[in-house]
Amino acid sequence: MNFSSDNASGVAPEIMAALAAVNDGGATAYGADAVTAAARDDLRALFGCDLVMYPVATGTAANALALATLAPPYGTVYCHRHAHIEADECNAPEFFSAGAKLTLLDGPHAKFDAAALAEVLAAAGTGVEHHAQPAAVSITQASERGAVYTVDEVAAIAEVARTHGLPLHMDGARFANAVAHLGCAPADVTWRAGVDVMSFGATKNGAMAAEAVLFFKPELARDFRFRRKRGGHLFSKMRFLSAQLRAYLHDDLWLRNARHANACARRLADGLAALPGAVVLHPVEANEVFVRLPEAAIEGLGADGVGFLRWGGPGAATLRLVTAFDTDPADVDRVIASARRHLRAAPP
Amino acid sequence: MNFSSDNASGVAPEIMAALAAVNDGGATAYGADAVTAAARDDLRALFGCDLVMYPVATGTAANALALATLAPPYGTVYCHRHAHIEADECNAPEFFSAGAKLTLLDGPHAKFDAAALAEVLAAAGTGVEHHAQPAAVSITQASERGAVYTVDEVAAIAEVARTHGLPLHMDGARFANAVAHLGCAPADVTWRAGVDVMSFGATKNGAMAAEAVLFFKPELARDFRFRRKRGGHLFSKMRFLSAQLRAYLHDDLWLRNARHANACARRLADGLAALPGAVVLHPVEANEVFVRLPEAAIEGLGADGVGFLRWGGPGAATLRLVTAFDTDPADVDRVIASARRHLRAAPP
Amino acid sequence: MNFSSDNASGVAPEIMAALAAVNDGGATAYGADAVTAAARDDLRALFGCDLVMYPVATGTAANALALATLAPPYGTVYCHRHAHIEADECNAPEFFSAGAKLTLLDGPHAKFDAAALAEVLAAAGTGVEHHAQPAAVSITQASERGAVYTVDEVAAIAEVARTHGLPLHMDGARFANAVAHLGCAPADVTWRAGVDVMSFGATKNGAMAAEAVLFFKPELARDFRFRRKRGGHLFSKMRFLSAQLRAYLHDDLWLRNARHANACARRLADGLAALPGAVVLHPVEANEVFVRLPEAAIEGLGADGVGFLRWGGPGAATLRLVTAFDTDPADVDRVIASARRHLRAAPP
Amino acid sequence: MNFSSDNASGVAPEIMAALAAVNDGGATAYGADAVTAAARDDLRALFGCDLVMYPVATGTAANALALATLAPPYGTVYCHRHAHIEADECNAPEFFSAGAKLTLLDGPHAKFDAAALAEVLAAAGTGVEHHAQPAAVSITQASERGAVYTVDEVAAIAEVARTHGLPLHMDGARFANAVAHLGCAPADVTWRAGVDVMSFGATKNGAMAAEAVLFFKPELARDFRFRRKRGGHLFSKMRFLSAQLRAYLHDDLWLRNARHANACARRLADGLAALPGAVVLHPVEANEVFVRLPEAAIEGLGADGVGFLRWGGPGAATLRLVTAFDTDPADVDRVIASARRHLRAAPP
Repeated sequence: MNFSSDNASGVAPEIMAALAAVNDGGATAYGADAVTAAARDDLRALFGCDLVMYPVATGTAANALALATLAPPYGTVYCHRHAHIEADECNAPEFFSAGAKLTLLDGPHAKFDAAALAEVLAAAGTGVEHHAQPAAVSITQASERGAVYTVDEVAAIAEVARTHGLPLHMDGARFANAVAHLGCAPADVTWRAGVDVMSFGATKNGAMAAEAVLFFKPELARDFRFRRKRGGHLFSKMRFLSAQLRAYLHDDLWLRNARHANACARRLADGLAALPGAVVLHPVEANEVFVRLPEAAIEGLGADGVGFLRWGGPGAATLRLVTAFDTDPADVDRVIASARRHLRAAPP
Repeated sequence: MNFSSDNASGVAPEIMAALAAVNDGGATAYGADAVTAAARDDLRALFGCDLVMYPVATGTAANALALATLAPPYGTVYCHRHAHIEADECNAPEFFSAGAKLTLLDGPHAKFDAAALAEVLAAAGTGVEHHAQPAAVSITQASERGAVYTVDEVAAIAEVARTHGLPLHMDGARFANAVAHLGCAPADVTWRAGVDVMSFGATKNGAMAAEAVLFFKPELARDFRFRRKRGGHLFSKMRFLSAQLRAYLHDDLWLRNARHANACARRLADGLAALPGAVVLHPVEANEVFVRLPEAAIEGLGADGVGFLRWGGPGAATLRLVTAFDTDPADVDRVIASARRHLRAAPP
Repeated sequence: MNFSSDNASGVAPEIMAALAAVNDGGATAYGADAVTAAARDDLRALFGCDLVMYPVATGTAANALALATLAPPYGTVYCHRHAHIEADECNAPEFFSAGAKLTLLDGPHAKFDAAALAEVLAAAGTGVEHHAQPAAVSITQASERGAVYTVDEVAAIAEVARTHGLPLHMDGARFANAVAHLGCAPADVTWRAGVDVMSFGATKNGAMAAEAVLFFKPELARDFRFRRKRGGHLFSKMRFLSAQLRAYLHDDLWLRNARHANACARRLADGLAALPGAVVLHPVEANEVFVRLPEAAIEGLGADGVGFLRWGGPGAATLRLVTAFDTDPADVDRVIASARRHLRAAPP
Repeated sequence: MNFSSDNASGVAPEIMAALAAVNDGGATAYGADAVTAAARDDLRALFGCDLVMYPVATGTAANALALATLAPPYGTVYCHRHAHIEADECNAPEFFSAGAKLTLLDGPHAKFDAAALAEVLAAAGTGVEHHAQPAAVSITQASERGAVYTVDEVAAIAEVARTHGLPLHMDGARFANAVAHLGCAPADVTWRAGVDVMSFGATKNGAMAAEAVLFFKPELARDFRFRRKRGGHLFSKMRFLSAQLRAYLHDDLWLRNARHANACARRLADGLAALPGAVVLHPVEANEVFVRLPEAAIEGLGADGVGFLRWGGPGAATLRLVTAFDTDPADVDRVIASARRHLRAAPP
C-alpha cells in the first residue's frame, strides 16, 4: 500500500508488452525509425493538429529542454512558486537555459491566474537591460497540489502571455489526470486555449520512462534537436521510448489509467474527509490527496504499512497520498479504515 | 543485415525478461530501491573493489556527467581528436561542465599514448590564469576506430595523468568488447591501471538504455547526484535501469555478447580483407570494421540490402561496419559473398 | 541637479589625479604590479586582517564572480527580493554560477532578518537531490532602499548562515555609506560580524570604475582568478584600477565622500518630509531618499530641471533621489524649495 | 626597456587628457550619454558605414560577448589554433556562449586561409545533431604571431563563411597595427571584405581600458545589450570608456600610435636579424617580433634589464618582443646593441 509517489507504481502491462513487441532486433537508430514516426502521428491525431514531437525519458528533461528552447539566458520564465520546475528539479531549467531565471507567482492550490501574471508582467522592465527579460510562461496541469486549470483559466493566462509576446508552456506530467477530470478534448485545454509547447507526460501514469515534448507551433522547435542531443537525452534505441508512447495512447490507455487513479484519489479523499479532525487541503481533481490528520492517524497508518509523504518534512501534520493507474480500490478502503481505527483508539 | 550501428540491434532477451520481472508494481522511487543497490553490489563484485555507481540511460549523459564532476568550467579535458565526447556529443561535455574545453590529442586508430599526453601537458600553462587549466584525461575503450588500449598503455597514460594531478576517465561505451579482446579482468584495465572514473556502457551491447557511471575513488563523486538530477537524468523508476544492468552482468552476459560481436567483426574483417582492392584500415579488436572498398563492392552491398555507413560522408570509399551481440554469422558471410560477387562482376 | 543615480556623478579629483600619477609608462601587466600589491595592503590595513583582494571594474562583476566562487550550479543563494543581484543584474549571478538560483527573502526596507533566513533554510531540503542546495547568503549594505544593517543584524544573519554551513557575502556597493552611518570600524560590520566575502564598492562613491572583491577567508578564493579571467574581468593595465582603490582609501577619502553624500540625503529627506503630502518611505541611512510626493511637486521638480527616478515606472508617485560625494548642498535646498513652491501653487 | 607585452605600456597622454576633460561631474549613466553617442558616430565616420557600437573594457570581453551573440551553445566557432580566443582567454568564449566549442585550424604565422576553412567546413556535419554546428568564423588581425591578413585573404575567408551561412568575426585587438601595415581604409579590410562583427581594440595601443564591439550588420546585435549587462560589462560611468575611444580616434591618434609601434618592431627585427645565429620566425607586420637567439644573447638581454617573454616557457630559445606607441627608438637600438655585445663576448 504505497501511496508515496506516482513513481512507486510500475509499468502498465500494455506498455510492457509493447516494449517486448518492438524488440524485433533492428531499426534505424536515434529516432529515425518507423515507430517514432508513428508515435508522432498518434499524437497529431490525438490533438487534432500539426505538431512536432520529441520523445525524452524524464519529466525534468522534457520541461528543461522545452523551456531552454523558449528562454534566452538573460530571460525569465513565469511560473507558480510550487511548480515542479522551481521546487523539484534542482535547477534544471536554469541549467538548460544557461542561467535564465524563474519568476515566481502565487495563488491557491499551486495555480496562478491571469491577473497575477498580468500584474507582474506590467512591472517587468521589458527591454531594459538591467532586468531579466520576460521569456515564457509555464503552467502545471494538473498542479503540484492536485488541482486542475479549467479551459477558461488556461485561455485567460494564454491571452496575457500573448499580449506580452510570450510563449506558453504546459508541464503536463499529470496531463492525463487533468483531462480525465475536465472531460474535454486534449486540444481544448492546450493549443486551442493558447498553449504553445507542452511536456506530455506518460511516466507517472503507467509508462516506464517516456515523455513527449510537443510543439504546437513547429517554428518554436527550431533548435530542440541539438539541445536534446547535447543534454544527453537523444536515445540511440529511441523506438523503445516511442513504443511506450504508442501503447500509452492506444485504445485510450492514458485516459483509462488516469480515470482510475483520479477515482481512487476521490474515494480516498472522501473517506478521509469524513474522519474527525481531518482536513483535505486542496481540491482533489487529479491523483493526489493532501490531507491534514491527527498525529494518531498518521502514526497508525505508518504502523499499518501505508506508504505516504509527510508534506513539509518530518513531523508535519499534512500527508500527501498519491494514487496510480494500478491502485487497488480495496487498498484505498484499507487506508481509510486504518486511519479511522487509529483515531478511535487514540485518547481524546 | 544492418551493420550501420551498434544501436540498430535490439535488446538481449535476458535483459527484456529482467525488465518484465522487475515490474512488480511497486518500489521506492529515484534509485532508493533494492534493485539499484544490488546492481551496485554486482558491479563491486565484478571490479573487485569498493566503488560508487550511478545508473543513467545514455552514453552521452554518462560521459558528460562524469567529466563535469571532474572538470571546473575553466578547465580542459585531454582526449583524442576522434573521441566520442569531442566528435559525436554535440558539445555535451562543454554543456555539463559549464564551458570547459576539450584539448585534442592525435594518434593512430583513435588512441593517443602517454608520450603525446606528456608533451601537451608540459606546455599547458598550469596555474596561469590566461589558459584553460588541465582538469582531466579521457580515453575511449574500445576506441572510436575499433582499437583497444592494452593494460600497459592505459597504465602509462594514467601515470602521466597522476603526475599532473589529473583524474583519468574512461569512456567504456564498448568496454565489454575491449575486455573480451584483452582477456583480462575488468579491474586490470581500469582501477588497477589507474582509471578513476568510467562510463560503463551496456546499451551498445544488448541493453535497452542503461549505462553506469563508476567512481573508483568515491570522493570524486561528491556532487554527481545533484548534477544528474539537474541534468534530467535521475529516473523516477530507476529500478528499470538497474534491472538492465543486473541482467547484463548476470552469468557473464556482457562478456558473452561482446565476444560474439567481436568474433563476427573479426570474421567480417578477414573475409573482406581477402578481397582484391580491399584495405582494412584499423586493427579489428572490438566490434567495428573500417574497410576501404572499390566502389563496385560498396554499391553492390547497398543493392543487396546491407546497412553500413560511408565513413567520411556520401561518396566516401571507406565503410564502417558494426557487429552486435545478435549478429548472425551467416549474415557476415553473406556480406563477404556479396562484396566478392560484385567485385567479380565489375569491369576491371 | 541630477539626483537620478550615484553614477550620474563623476570621478573624485583625488582619484583622477591618482590615475594621471600612475601613468608612468610601464608596469607588469595583469595585476602583478606594485600598485595592486599596495592596494591589497591598504585594504588589509583598513580591515585589520589578512585578506585576498581582487580588483574588478563593475559591481555586477564583483557580485557575480564572488557568488560564483561560493555557489555550485545546483545551489541557491539567499538574498532579499529587492537585492541588486536579483533585481538589477540581468541574471549575472545565474550566469557566472552556471545556473545557480536565487531564493528570495522578504523584509522591510530591502533588508531581511535572521529569523526569516532561518525559517526558509529549515525547509530547504539540504542534501535532497531534487532541490536546489543552499550555497550562500548575500546581504546588501546599504540596502537597495537606503537602509543599513546594524552590526548586530549582520551578526545574527551570519550566525544562521554559519549554523547551516553557508558562507556570507556582502554586496557593499554602498558600503562606505553604511559605515559612515554606523560609525563603526569596517571590520566590525564585516569579518568580525561573520561576513566571509564582500564586494567593496568604490564606483558609486567617487571612483571611475573600481570595485574590490575581498575574501576574508582566503581559502574561499581558490578559483576566483580563473573565473575572473574567463569572465573578461582581468584588466591588462590593472594598476589603473588599483590606483583608484588606493586613492579612494587614502586619507579616508571613501569615508569623507560617503559622509557628505549621507548628510545631503539626510538634509534632503528632512526638507521634503516637512512638505504637506510628502511621505518618506524608508529610513534614510545612506545616500538614497525614497519619497512619495503629490504629483504637482513631482512635475514641478521635473520642470525645474531636477533629475530623479519615478520609482515603479512612469506615473509612479514615489521618487528615488540619490546624493553623491559631489552633491552641492545648495542644490539640495533648491530641490526642497522647488517642491515647496510647486505644492503651494497647486490647486488644493 | 620593457618589451614583454603591449600592456606594459601606459596610457597615451591624449587619452589621459580626455578622461580628465570628460569628468564634468554629471551625465546619464550606463551609456545613454552624449559622449558614447559621439564615439559611435566617430566610428561610423571612420568605417564609412552604419554600425552598432558597444564599448567594453577588455579584449576578452569584446571577443567573448561578440561570439556569444553569434554562436548558439551547440555551435562551434572556427579559428586558428593560436588565436587569442583559444589560447589566452581561459575559456571565456565557451563561458559566454554557454558551452559552444572552438574548432581549430592550422596555418603559418597564426593565420589560416580560405582553403583550410573550406575543407573543415565540408566535413562539419551541418544539420546532424550529433555534431557541434558551424556557427561563426573568427580571424585575428593582426595575428598572434605579428602577421597581418591581406584584404584579399580576408575576403576569401569571408566568401567561404558566407557560402556556409556563417558570420565572420574579427578579433582586432591589434587592428590599428594591421591597418598601419596595410595602408588601406579600415572599411577595406573589414565590412567591405565581408567581416560582420569586430572587436576594435584600443587598450593595447594607448587606451587605459577600452574596446569597441562593432556590428556592421546591426541585426546581428539583437541581444548584445542583455549579454553585456549579465556579463558585468555594462559600465555605469560609460562616458569614461567612450571618451577614451573618442580621443583614440581623434586626429588619427590610433593610426599614429600604431605606425610608431610597427616601425619600432621593424627596426628591432632588422637589427636582431643581422646578428649571428638569430632567426626571425614570423613576418614582422605589426608590433611583435618573434626571434630565436643564442642563449648568450638572451641571458645578456636579461642581465641588461630588457623585459621580454621566453616564448614556449622557461628555457625556450625564442623571444617575443613587443613594441608600443611609446617605445623609445633609442631603447630599440640599445636592445640590438646589447644582444650584439653579449654574442661577441660569448665563447664560440
